[in-house]
Amino acid sequence: MFLGCQFSLYPMTDGFVGVILDAIKPLDEYRSKLRVETDDISTTLIGPPEVLFPALKACFLAAARRSGHVVMNVSLSRGCPGEPDDPLCHSPALTEASARSNGDAVGAALERRRSLPPTGVRTAAQIALYPLGQTGYMDEIGACIAFAKEAGVFDRAKHFCSRLQGDAADVFEAIEQSFLGFAGPDSHVVLTAILSKGSPTQAA
Amino acid sequence: MFLGCQFSLYPMTDGFVGVILDAIKPLDEYRSKLRVETDDISTTLIGPPEVLFPALKACFLAAARRSGHVVMNVSLSRGCPGEPDDPLCHSPALTEASARSNGDAVGAALERRRSLPPTGVRTAAQIALYPLGQTGYMDEIGACIAFAKEAGVFDRAKHFCSRLQGDAADVFEAIEQSFLGFAGPDSHVVLTAILSKGSPTQAA
Repeated sequence: MFLGCQFSLYPMTDGFVGVILDAIKPLDEYRSKLRVETDDISTTLIGPPEVLFPALKACFLAAARRSGHVVMNVSLSRGCPGEPDDPLCHSPALTEASARSNGDAVGAALERRRSLPPTGVRTAAQIALYPLGQTGYMDEIGACIAFAKEAGVFDRAKHFCSRLQGDAADVFEAIEQSFLGFAGPDSHVVLTAILSKGSPTQAA
Repeated sequence: MFLGCQFSLYPMTDGFVGVILDAIKPLDEYRSKLRVETDDISTTLIGPPEVLFPALKACFLAAARRSGHVVMNVSLSRGCPGEPDDPLCHSPALTEASARSNGDAVGAALERRRSLPPTGVRTAAQIALYPLGQTGYMDEIGACIAFAKEAGVFDRAKHFCSRLQGDAADVFEAIEQSFLGFAGPDSHVVLTAILSKGSPTQAA
């Protein structure tokens, strides 16, 4: 299993360099458990989901607290057949998600979802799930949308994606369970997410 | 066929609102041929590729010329079985791409690629192609990467994506042919792209 993401932070301020550099500092405490590489377009994180998601959230929150309007763009991937199995990524999270589902992936994802302390950072997001290499992928996407609706962060369907909103803690939790809980533990699954804080545009 | 994208512009400046509003003004001249909807996270464009890609490029260039560092994020989608057939999206581009390939999708994409006047805007990008609902999708991705290499804009492979660079005209052209030319004309295909101009970070 190979699991990771590419993510970028876009602070809409003249001081974006300082905001970004400060916002990725929290990654230092995860470096023993995550592979981290940053270039001019994005930061790569490779490692198990139980480390990767807290690291992502820490970076988003650090940027959100320093910048008026900031966006995080993430492409998460697991099980890509073009990548080698990597012991760093081994985690019980995916097999547990599958073992507990008993055919009810939506119910299992809702059960796994933790109720975390609110961050106070109001977050809008849009996500899309892409289970690859399987003909029944639209059913998996439908189940994931049903989960987001039950999870209380679903705002509305848009073309090609779903719009979420809520406290950053709840939005990240929904994204994590969406990424892990559908299409089977060994499948190649991609989830793209845009998370936005502080847009001056009124939500539609 | 349903075809479109969600795109966002992120000008890294205190004046981001003005840059974004000016940068999406070029869409006005396309409104008779594209459906356009903007909210706080992204702008939806629905329509045929021969209109959609010039519109996207016009917005990116308008933002790039007004802002030091600016990023465009795009998720393109065609053939989603969850969307209705829409006459607005009917276009010969996909069937032509397929008819001319004669089994050689890479050669056909290279042949379709136009040599456009340079924009003078040096652009870095990373893209990922996701052909959905088919087991042979990794071969299609491999062919698309082979095309990008031959097209002269491929910089390097990253985890989960390919890094491109070049003049914006060449990068957009490669993205358009990558989106249209692989996995068959009727398939559900998603392509995600990040385009970046003016990052103060030295490319790795």
